[in-house]
Amino acid sequence: MRLATLRDGTRDGRLSLVRRDGTRLADASHIARNLQAALDAWGTVEPRLREMEAEMEAGRIATDPVDLERLQAPLPRAYEWIDGSTYLNHARLVRKARGAELPASFETDPLVYQGGSGVLLGPADDILLHDPLMGLDFEGEIAVILGDVPMGTRAADALPHVRLIALLNDVTLRNLVPPELAKGFGFFQSKPATAFAPFAVTPDELGAAWHDGRAWLQMKIWLNDRLVGDLETGQEMHFSFAQLLEHVAHTRAFTAGTIIGSGTVSNADPTHGISCLVERRTLEVLASADRQPKTPFLRAGDRVAMEVFDAQARSLFGRIEQKVVAAGRLAD
Amino acid sequence: MRLATLRDGTRDGRLSLVRRDGTRLADASHIARNLQAALDAWGTVEPRLREMEAEMEAGRIATDPVDLERLQAPLPRAYEWIDGSTYLNHARLVRKARGAELPASFETDPLVYQGGSGVLLGPADDILLHDPLMGLDFEGEIAVILGDVPMGTRAADALPHVRLIALLNDVTLRNLVPPELAKGFGFFQSKPATAFAPFAVTPDELGAAWHDGRAWLQMKIWLNDRLVGDLETGQEMHFSFAQLLEHVAHTRAFTAGTIIGSGTVSNADPTHGISCLVERRTLEVLASADRQPKTPFLRAGDRVAMEVFDAQARSLFGRIEQKVVAAGRLAD
Repeated sequence: MRLATLRDGTRDGRLSLVRRDGTRLADASHIARNLQAALDAWGTVEPRLREMEAEMEAGRIATDPVDLERLQAPLPRAYEWIDGSTYLNHARLVRKARGAELPASFETDPLVYQGGSGVLLGPADDILLHDPLMGLDFEGEIAVILGDVPMGTRAADALPHVRLIALLNDVTLRNLVPPELAKGFGFFQSKPATAFAPFAVTPDELGAAWHDGRAWLQMKIWLNDRLVGDLETGQEMHFSFAQLLEHVAHTRAFTAGTIIGSGTVSNADPTHGISCLVERRTLEVLASADRQPKTPFLRAGDRVAMEVFDAQARSLFGRIEQKVVAAGRLAD
Repeated sequence: MRLATLRDGTRDGRLSLVRRDGTRLADASHIARNLQAALDAWGTVEPRLREMEAEMEAGRIATDPVDLERLQAPLPRAYEWIDGSTYLNHARLVRKARGAELPASFETDPLVYQGGSGVLLGPADDILLHDPLMGLDFEGEIAVILGDVPMGTRAADALPHVRLIALLNDVTLRNLVPPELAKGFGFFQSKPATAFAPFAVTPDELGAAWHDGRAWLQMKIWLNDRLVGDLETGQEMHFSFAQLLEHVAHTRAFTAGTIIGSGTVSNADPTHGISCLVERRTLEVLASADRQPKTPFLRAGDRVAMEVFDAQARSLFGRIEQKVVAAGRLAD
């Protein structure tokens, strides 16, 4: 089952159900008015949505074309957005460029940060760029959206709490990261609003591609219509979503609708390309005599697209297609 | 106007309005079903709540006694909870104990972290302690609850976005802090659920005690019925809420209901006592020959209470009164 959120002027939008071919959808707000309401009462809502899906597939429900511009993030605001860093190749690469090794603890102790969740962008929403010197970058990630999770949940018991799987662009202001992390309290200004692909999908939609707490899929990234990444999402995800969930639930409980991200998808084999510009810049630094990156960060007018495919070449989450728009420099 | 949230079995509780004397309240869910819904439509909801308050004060509305056990946090779950660290005495003291100076940037660049906001405790909810070795501590803080805030909002324009002011206990697991901050991504496991005093109050309730973007009030902290803190909340708050808001809005917008905290209230004059145990422990380390703290962190059975008073000795936010309860040690 694949769910999307139609823009209707309300803060949380309107729940809709996507047809299996991904081209059309139908309003499902008579079952739950929005996705948060659906997740809040998933036990009763899910069976009704599945009945509706059967009706829709049988052609007995009127549908509208999927129009990215009319769609918000599946959750336009969420109660928590927690992002991991599970593709160790990414962390290893970035450290290598500054001559450092990956600490051994990175292999055993998951790294997560608490992200801002009150404003989440839709798949075609502009990325506002106030100042090109901030170093605007994208990050392609897989995420899970949870039901209620009790404190102390262990990895072995974690996966039944996964209600939906999603694709996101974790927009990052790279040049704000080092000074912010040096302050010691984690990311804040360096992580502006995150954008989501239109469809949040139940784990069964992935079939055999959902196992070991990971999504084993193919992520494609385009920059200005040029394919820059064609990555495997499963193999190199060092910590599974189950392990991430155990880590974050060690001292806390979570309410339905909490989102946990994988961190930037990254493959050690460079022929897979990139899901964020900083990796390419790092490879350029490592490969060049002058130790300087050649690829610029995003500029006004640049377009970023992301899509994830299963073995049948089905675009599971629909497409992120965002444009960078100059928004007037903020005074400091 | 003072608002509270009655436990009614729903996730977000039921909006209620508190009588001026703070002893009784009335269901206001016919105006907005819960506080988030009120904040989402504040422009239309606030005048209706003020009309209801006038009716209540005139004795024309039935009221019930305020019962801490029946109250949840004003927002039992919020879209964002952002905590500052604005009382520089706290940061200075903690650094002094390890022989370090406060970096000069702390005077000009506010320090904030993104907290977990999906599960917020009510004023009488137990603090679950899984493992005394985690070093359980309380932190008394003032917070503001915001309306919608556009990206790029400046300090000079910030205060009209403050809808409500609140009191909270930012529960912290001290012994998890150093290893977690060393990982570089900020707090996570070290910050379990935060607890809130029952009443969220409009700024006009503070009268002259709300100026310069700070609440100029008296915060009292009790540990096992013994007064351990009697602090001034205004004077030593180095960054105002307006400055905090400018800082966090530099690259992001915020949805209604976002909470921003002041950080642990702390006064340089030690006769004011403490709003968190780690400060007393730090003073003990600095004063003793063996450089060891004497005061233990919280143990099962300990009781923490907090209350904030104005110049007329009115308890503005009602009382936090929590007990620490052993919850069975989590396996590692």
